Amino acid sequence: MFRFLTAGESHGKGLTVIVEGLPAGIPVSEKYIAADMARRQVGYGRGGRMKIETDFAEILSGVRHGLTMGSPVAMWIENRDWSTGTGPDGVNWTDEMSINPTDVEYQKLTKLRPGHADTAGTLKYHQDDARNILERSSARESAARVAAGSIAKRFLEEFDIEVHSHVTCIGGVHSNYMGELDWDLLEQAPFHQENPEGSKLAAVRCFDPEKASEMIETIDRARANGDSAGGIIQIVATGLPIGLGTHIQWDRKITTKLAGAVMSINAVKGVEFGAGFSQADLFGSQVHDVILPKSKWNKDNNKPGYGAWSRKTNNAGGVEGGMSNGEPLVINAIVKPIATIINGLETVDLHTGDFVDKAHFERSDITFVPTCAVIGEAMVACVIAESMLEKFGGDHLDETRRNYHSYLDTITP
Amino acid sequence: MFRFLTAGESHGKGLTVIVEGLPAGIPVSEKYIAADMARRQVGYGRGGRMKIETDFAEILSGVRHGLTMGSPVAMWIENRDWSTGTGPDGVNWTDEMSINPTDVEYQKLTKLRPGHADTAGTLKYHQDDARNILERSSARESAARVAAGSIAKRFLEEFDIEVHSHVTCIGGVHSNYMGELDWDLLEQAPFHQENPEGSKLAAVRCFDPEKASEMIETIDRARANGDSAGGIIQIVATGLPIGLGTHIQWDRKITTKLAGAVMSINAVKGVEFGAGFSQADLFGSQVHDVILPKSKWNKDNNKPGYGAWSRKTNNAGGVEGGMSNGEPLVINAIVKPIATIINGLETVDLHTGDFVDKAHFERSDITFVPTCAVIGEAMVACVIAESMLEKFGGDHLDETRRNYHSYLDTITP
Amino acid sequence: MFRFLTAGESHGKGLTVIVEGLPAGIPVSEKYIAADMARRQVGYGRGGRMKIETDFAEILSGVRHGLTMGSPVAMWIENRDWSTGTGPDGVNWTDEMSINPTDVEYQKLTKLRPGHADTAGTLKYHQDDARNILERSSARESAARVAAGSIAKRFLEEFDIEVHSHVTCIGGVHSNYMGELDWDLLEQAPFHQENPEGSKLAAVRCFDPEKASEMIETIDRARANGDSAGGIIQIVATGLPIGLGTHIQWDRKITTKLAGAVMSINAVKGVEFGAGFSQADLFGSQVHDVILPKSKWNKDNNKPGYGAWSRKTNNAGGVEGGMSNGEPLVINAIVKPIATIINGLETVDLHTGDFVDKAHFERSDITFVPTCAVIGEAMVACVIAESMLEKFGGDHLDETRRNYHSYLDTITP
Amino acid sequence: MFRFLTAGESHGKGLTVIVEGLPAGIPVSEKYIAADMARRQVGYGRGGRMKIETDFAEILSGVRHGLTMGSPVAMWIENRDWSTGTGPDGVNWTDEMSINPTDVEYQKLTKLRPGHADTAGTLKYHQDDARNILERSSARESAARVAAGSIAKRFLEEFDIEVHSHVTCIGGVHSNYMGELDWDLLEQAPFHQENPEGSKLAAVRCFDPEKASEMIETIDRARANGDSAGGIIQIVATGLPIGLGTHIQWDRKITTKLAGAVMSINAVKGVEFGAGFSQADLFGSQVHDVILPKSKWNKDNNKPGYGAWSRKTNNAGGVEGGMSNGEPLVINAIVKPIATIINGLETVDLHTGDFVDKAHFERSDITFVPTCAVIGEAMVACVIAESMLEKFGGDHLDETRRNYHSYLDTITP
Repeated sequence: MFRFLTAGESHGKGLTVIVEGLPAGIPVSEKYIAADMARRQVGYGRGGRMKIETDFAEILSGVRHGLTMGSPVAMWIENRDWSTGTGPDGVNWTDEMSINPTDVEYQKLTKLRPGHADTAGTLKYHQDDARNILERSSARESAARVAAGSIAKRFLEEFDIEVHSHVTCIGGVHSNYMGELDWDLLEQAPFHQENPEGSKLAAVRCFDPEKASEMIETIDRARANGDSAGGIIQIVATGLPIGLGTHIQWDRKITTKLAGAVMSINAVKGVEFGAGFSQADLFGSQVHDVILPKSKWNKDNNKPGYGAWSRKTNNAGGVEGGMSNGEPLVINAIVKPIATIINGLETVDLHTGDFVDKAHFERSDITFVPTCAVIGEAMVACVIAESMLEKFGGDHLDETRRNYHSYLDTITP
Repeated sequence: MFRFLTAGESHGKGLTVIVEGLPAGIPVSEKYIAADMARRQVGYGRGGRMKIETDFAEILSGVRHGLTMGSPVAMWIENRDWSTGTGPDGVNWTDEMSINPTDVEYQKLTKLRPGHADTAGTLKYHQDDARNILERSSARESAARVAAGSIAKRFLEEFDIEVHSHVTCIGGVHSNYMGELDWDLLEQAPFHQENPEGSKLAAVRCFDPEKASEMIETIDRARANGDSAGGIIQIVATGLPIGLGTHIQWDRKITTKLAGAVMSINAVKGVEFGAGFSQADLFGSQVHDVILPKSKWNKDNNKPGYGAWSRKTNNAGGVEGGMSNGEPLVINAIVKPIATIINGLETVDLHTGDFVDKAHFERSDITFVPTCAVIGEAMVACVIAESMLEKFGGDHLDETRRNYHSYLDTITP
Repeated sequence: MFRFLTAGESHGKGLTVIVEGLPAGIPVSEKYIAADMARRQVGYGRGGRMKIETDFAEILSGVRHGLTMGSPVAMWIENRDWSTGTGPDGVNWTDEMSINPTDVEYQKLTKLRPGHADTAGTLKYHQDDARNILERSSARESAARVAAGSIAKRFLEEFDIEVHSHVTCIGGVHSNYMGELDWDLLEQAPFHQENPEGSKLAAVRCFDPEKASEMIETIDRARANGDSAGGIIQIVATGLPIGLGTHIQWDRKITTKLAGAVMSINAVKGVEFGAGFSQADLFGSQVHDVILPKSKWNKDNNKPGYGAWSRKTNNAGGVEGGMSNGEPLVINAIVKPIATIINGLETVDLHTGDFVDKAHFERSDITFVPTCAVIGEAMVACVIAESMLEKFGGDHLDETRRNYHSYLDTITP
Repeated sequence: MFRFLTAGESHGKGLTVIVEGLPAGIPVSEKYIAADMARRQVGYGRGGRMKIETDFAEILSGVRHGLTMGSPVAMWIENRDWSTGTGPDGVNWTDEMSINPTDVEYQKLTKLRPGHADTAGTLKYHQDDARNILERSSARESAARVAAGSIAKRFLEEFDIEVHSHVTCIGGVHSNYMGELDWDLLEQAPFHQENPEGSKLAAVRCFDPEKASEMIETIDRARANGDSAGGIIQIVATGLPIGLGTHIQWDRKITTKLAGAVMSINAVKGVEFGAGFSQADLFGSQVHDVILPKSKWNKDNNKPGYGAWSRKTNNAGGVEGGMSNGEPLVINAIVKPIATIINGLETVDLHTGDFVDKAHFERSDITFVPTCAVIGEAMVACVIAESMLEKFGGDHLDETRRNYHSYLDTITP
């Protein structure tokens, strides 16, 4: 049973995450995780904070001499803002977010930001300062998820399962790219003000060169207008064996878990598999993915159960009946425009309910879409890891792998 | 803690459902549930089976003298096919689906239907007869969910929370209706072959009269072509207090739970809240729902916490930061075209992997979209009921209600 | 993931149980389950009701042609009292426990029985009739657990795991038996008024012939005195592989789950493993179970991982560090005297809080200890089944077995 | 929904704990928690390590300006051994337990200790060094539980619920004390070698002065013999309202949860409520706790629902039907003698299975019983907190309290 919990506020001491249930014997290093942490931080449209935080997930327990021990893995991601004492906004976070009562005066945030947890959170938790909500509801928490997801990915790597992502839309600019997906391309040094030679594709994590440039322009325009932009991310996982998840109960379908996990990302407002909403315009004969006969199976594919039982198309996005069907898992998610806008929206005051012309502004990004793609990978990796362990069991990597391979042998006639 | 499990195969004896965790004192009757059961069964495009089954959920336990007792509510929905012995296809289901070993010859299903659980299920569960998978994966299981959801709805009714649904697209015909949503309209006697005087709106559960007619034509065309159609459903829940769900952990957001629950419905391939995917084309200033000042709150609305803190728009679909924000909950879901098609798709044989020109055909519907809307209500009602109990606790309806009202008092300044 | 839920009241229509998460391919029959159902019903000291109910668990779903399908198994156990209309107490249960509102007059139970759920339940659930609590809190519910446990046992049988039980004390009479445990002995036709030739051992499920006779006398004396008796049961499970459960988190230890599951049985007030409470009087050197060297392992034992790593003693009761250690699992549980006593105890009235000289009497048994032993087996079997599936995974019995054997190969040097 | 997870190895960097689900507004400080942390560390019979670790639970998140925020509370307890580099055994823990691969030579532990997780753990997790198991299975982990429990206690304090513990037996010396339980007595400066003026009662957390002295002698004798001792702890919680937990499903009884939580403590081998196992020797009329009539309720007791519906006796230990009944919750647990013994037991070698005359010895205590009592409080407090929130809900302390009081009003006629 794989599970993980995160803790931590955006400007508190840092983030904690406990990841549990992975078998012993998985090679895990802070360096491996650091790569994903860094990927989360880049992306055109991210604000100043990105620069001050070079996130590092320190492993506190559960790993010895480079291998998981089977026991829970705890990680710690320090918030640089806190440790440096004074944030760029002149706020002393050590006082502002002090664990102990403080005599230092501080400003309560009451100009509720539409689109955020501010309103529902302060009312639900009976708070008179929206900071007590927004600190936890902040996108910063996703750094802890990425750390957890990175360990899940490392586990999946042992089964040749890979989880990737790219951006297919930002601010109304839709990618039309139909070529091969070359994931390394998106990991190059990205283009931005300090790196005008960088890759525009990498800057927005988009495969379409022309549209990548347009996306960058759109982000620049949004910034100039004191506005923000949203978009669409696509998460693609390859190598899943046929039969993860199950059709037998509503809460055990892998689609149930994947939809929940991806929707749990801040700013995500919609999730679809494969052809998704576009299927509403099609007939059954146009949609369903015809199964290829044995003679056409990819003999060179050394992953039985993956090359086997393959399809002409993948409109289902790799899932049928709440189970993986051997085709790549394809998930699209809509990321709403960031709710914190420089030109704050009209709103009300928490204490009085009276009109306020501009909601509170807390340093923010213009768009979060490329980063969300990386967070999406983490969440998807966690669900796949959970599903793998549910089907194959195992307390040491060798055991899980043994069970996995013996299953694969049974599904290739 | 609210939870429910279903059991039962499509052509077995029947379906069982256990619903647990609701407080004592809720008025529940088989008649009340029967209304929802019937709503699930009608809908233009449903096939012959609809006629033979008049589903009835018999309450087996957990209700005494018309009121819930706090103990688990079990319900039983008999499959008429089973009890009548012989199905319309000439199959004797009592033998075919016998609990005990049988000497009667039966045909193993091996012509895997693309779009169904057939392939992944038979391989995962190591079955040589797809019937062992499709019987459970069948949409028939949703009858049990509707029974569970009906009880959840009855509970929510006590808090003036209503859960409704309508259809916004079938087979590429999109509703443009912008008027008032009059839910009773959709519950009229629906138009169909036997009832040509019926309401076309009710036939497809769509508010747009012109588009409703077009949808019916599209369904007829699909039938004529031996094809199937999908569409989009919208589930709308009103009256939710501000603050159901929470932002504090990824798996406790109401959005996580709602997305998972709706995606768990057979044939649903995508879920979105409010403006959903369309937000990818908009800027932050266009999307976020400005909070109205106190002076504009609806004084006549006797549900404090609902009329209060209201919004100019509802692009968020009633959820922010993983919590309900007091606006109507609006969820759209794409329902893929039914995978069982009269003109069966090309496929392979389970035993040999060889080419088969037509997949197995099991009596089926042309479209399932209007029915899916009713199932969607059930799943959403269950999640809301769970969230209400998590926030307000209570073991008798009076207690939950008392806690609910005392909370509402605190959130209206 | 193995789980089960029960529903049903003592004098309602019947009991329902859904068991989920077992692999496909397990041979299961109603006849197999009936044997355990019958074992639950016999036992010296059980009252009249035993005779009228010959419980039968009807399988409603999840089994086809004698094999589990992987889908949830629902079972139904009719209450004969209900179906015969009138109970032996002259009560018409069909009215008394009617799902629908009734015009028939009925007596509210308000003379709260000490030792029962009556007091806490009526106050918690805000009921004015203790029947609404005692109907669910009744020991009758255990019939549903036995049905669930029987399926779990059938699964475990495939791994040569057996779960047995016997009684070591009734009403202060303690068994001193130190010989071989011959489980078949306890399944003989038991001694009772109608069967004075029956086995006294079987009558009380005790291996000590002398003490078995004394136990019977004690029960007779209790009956004569209008009193009730308790005792101690021992549950013994053999054949568990080393390594079920885990030490890594408090809620995943098999000891956590076993203690909870056994304590959940009505009337159980204490649970211990192996030497249990007696270890408080011993030193470490006297208690811990020395591991035998390889040279002494039982070569004839064809269950590797069970004969291997064996111990000189088994004070630990087969569990160390929250995991099975290859020795027999030994659990003792104290069953309190039945709380419903013919000479009802002094108590108060629910409505007034005033003194009442005799609590309500509802037909009951004198002792429930032999029956509790059978229920204990069921709960333990369910936990072991869950733990087996967590470690070995598998969706078809063959897969689980394959994984199990390949693990066993790794733990025998 | 209250939950918590711990992470961390005994000689790694430290322990992490995430506690989640408590309402906002609870006053929590590191100082408050430190008191419980210190109580866990004292106790006659604890070894040298106790001296070097003055445990301190640092709050990392979830608390701001002295109040919980509703978000998860993470805490960190540093291992002094690690930070000081070299442990008292001459081992450099920074190398020995390095997260990264190391070139430093280290000894693999293979002389399996009977009574520990060593055998089952190494086989289950396929490890060739028992350190990878014993580091997590160590009693040190309980420090994280005590930190979690301390926050739960702080929450319960707001409802006048107190959780205490004492020791009733060590090494065969049983307390006979029948007087008033004065909890402060047990928190005095305890007697030990460095503090010969200290309180003997506090040294072993026992209320019987004579037996406390005998217990100390027994511990001294065990130490002299290179042996270890076990005993019995009693956990007493007062102030629980009637109706925590429920009778409706086996896994929701508070007895299920309490038994599991207490049994999850390292070294606990048995758990009983109230009169526990002694009831096997009694008849029903002697055991059940007669309910006092209203006229005898304690009018001065300002906790309605606690003074009300009170009992003549408390053999049930405060729980009936899986629910709290308003009487003090009384739990006894047997703590086995520590498995690590200076005069190591005979055992085998992990790699060869060959005879070994002395199991590995890792610095350890002579008895752990007084400490276990404190850990027991923590686990019980966590279960009660969870049950309170399940019944009363609430996201701010004020809300939970409001709901709690309005319930109490309904149960006092």
